[in-house]
Amino acid sequence: MSNKLYVFGHQKPDTDSITSAIVLANLERALGLDATAYKLGEVNKETKYALKTFETEEPLTLDSVDENCDVAMVDNNEFSQSVSGIEKANIKMVVDHHKIKFETVEPIFYLAEPVGCTATILYKLYKQNDVEIDSQIAGLMLSAIISDTLLFKSPTCTKQDVEIANKLSKIAGVDIETYGKEMLKAGTDISEFTPYQVINIDSKEFNDKNTKFEISQVNAVDLDSVFSRQSELEDAIQKEIQDKNLDFYMFAATDILNANSKIIAIGNKANAVEKAFGVNLENNTAMLNNVVSRKKQMLPNILNNLD
Amino acid sequence: MSNKLYVFGHQKPDTDSITSAIVLANLERALGLDATAYKLGEVNKETKYALKTFETEEPLTLDSVDENCDVAMVDNNEFSQSVSGIEKANIKMVVDHHKIKFETVEPIFYLAEPVGCTATILYKLYKQNDVEIDSQIAGLMLSAIISDTLLFKSPTCTKQDVEIANKLSKIAGVDIETYGKEMLKAGTDISEFTPYQVINIDSKEFNDKNTKFEISQVNAVDLDSVFSRQSELEDAIQKEIQDKNLDFYMFAATDILNANSKIIAIGNKANAVEKAFGVNLENNTAMLNNVVSRKKQMLPNILNNLD
Repeated sequence: MSNKLYVFGHQKPDTDSITSAIVLANLERALGLDATAYKLGEVNKETKYALKTFETEEPLTLDSVDENCDVAMVDNNEFSQSVSGIEKANIKMVVDHHKIKFETVEPIFYLAEPVGCTATILYKLYKQNDVEIDSQIAGLMLSAIISDTLLFKSPTCTKQDVEIANKLSKIAGVDIETYGKEMLKAGTDISEFTPYQVINIDSKEFNDKNTKFEISQVNAVDLDSVFSRQSELEDAIQKEIQDKNLDFYMFAATDILNANSKIIAIGNKANAVEKAFGVNLENNTAMLNNVVSRKKQMLPNILNNLD
Repeated sequence: MSNKLYVFGHQKPDTDSITSAIVLANLERALGLDATAYKLGEVNKETKYALKTFETEEPLTLDSVDENCDVAMVDNNEFSQSVSGIEKANIKMVVDHHKIKFETVEPIFYLAEPVGCTATILYKLYKQNDVEIDSQIAGLMLSAIISDTLLFKSPTCTKQDVEIANKLSKIAGVDIETYGKEMLKAGTDISEFTPYQVINIDSKEFNDKNTKFEISQVNAVDLDSVFSRQSELEDAIQKEIQDKNLDFYMFAATDILNANSKIIAIGNKANAVEKAFGVNLENNTAMLNNVVSRKKQMLPNILNNLD
């Protein structure tokens, strides 16, 4: 038997990061490996809803990996977003759909495709390896695609994501629209969260051109209710900026029904955000029409406007 | 119609780099893209033999690519080994089997697998996309696998390479052993080459831990005839070291029948080679038993022994 393979997504996991770890570990087990899925942080409400619907246990939490431990990364490829110790782990596989910043000493399996969701790529890996997709695995993959593409509304969504989601919904036995809206809604309830928890629901740190910044995103069905807490959210953001020595922080509340985002941007270089989207920050906020995707819209626009 | 897609391998192309460019361009055309294969340097004798056998024209030479030109990289992912202008090109795809050192601003298609040859991965992409492999394409893929795995003798060779080569030989209508030995032999004739040409048949530059070095490899059926030219080869190597400001240069003549390599190593940090293989350089040379693969044996051993 080979060494144990640890499979996990990124820190502050979203639905794709959790379910794709489960789905890839299941595939690798079917192919004879001793693979186990882990999570790198607390599971959010949307993901909990998906796991409950498809009767799946939450993966255990992984705090760090040992030197030369065999690992597979899903839904990310950047060490800064991964587990403690990843630099010295033995990375066997990466399956991802993000921009690439990666280096190895030896050849490995690395599959990235410019599609909306890691699950879309994993569906094809199951097919390629002739491994059956049961209703549970199909439901988890479908949940990830709905989550990452905001029910196909995100510009990151491709024809492949839609086609594969339709196939998966048949296997999983759920209606995409009905299930999808319920799942997304489950993720927007932030009423019980502290401001710190709100901005850390799905937040990623980036570092480019000597600029260190963080983009945090929450889904919402009612932007006003999110911004009724603007003042305390700003306090939490200011603390993050100080603690992490960030040049700026952008928080985006994305209206999943109307496909817009309202942002808070704070920090010495917050003008990069104004340049990136052609807006003026008023009271630290701005409305970004038709902007819903961090990966395809927020991040590249900002990267192109750093000095 | 989409933009034209330029498909190419690495500088100083080997058989995999040339044929995989042709094979991937053919696949992308079958999928509706305007794709054309190019070469980044002169085609070697082994590759010429393969192209002639399977009645295929040499690709045109590409000297540089324009900004935002759509490109696909095969058999490598490092800008230092690629075409001039690659930094500002729009890299759409990478299909490769080497260690990864890569960065993008947007998500792209990136497929790397730890197999012996790019052609092995391309075979699976044809299957996955239901595109027919005709006898010409099969012959080109087979030639690449034979070349990269030294007829399955290299430690880089995997079960997949062997299985797929066997399938391809049936489609191509050639006997692997007979054709393979003839093709490899065609590549070992260096009698008409200047010393400069000999060391540049298949040479790659690397840069790690503040050490800039080059590893050059030629296949041989008779090591003595190669080393009868040691003195003039050393002169050519010394010139490369000076021109490129290298810390050391390793030239390996690999005996493809007995699976050993005899090396010349020169330069300020040539002791890294001694440490890497546990040998003492005598008259700048050493015999490396059972060492045939630059990627899997020479390079990682050296990288692990740089100060």
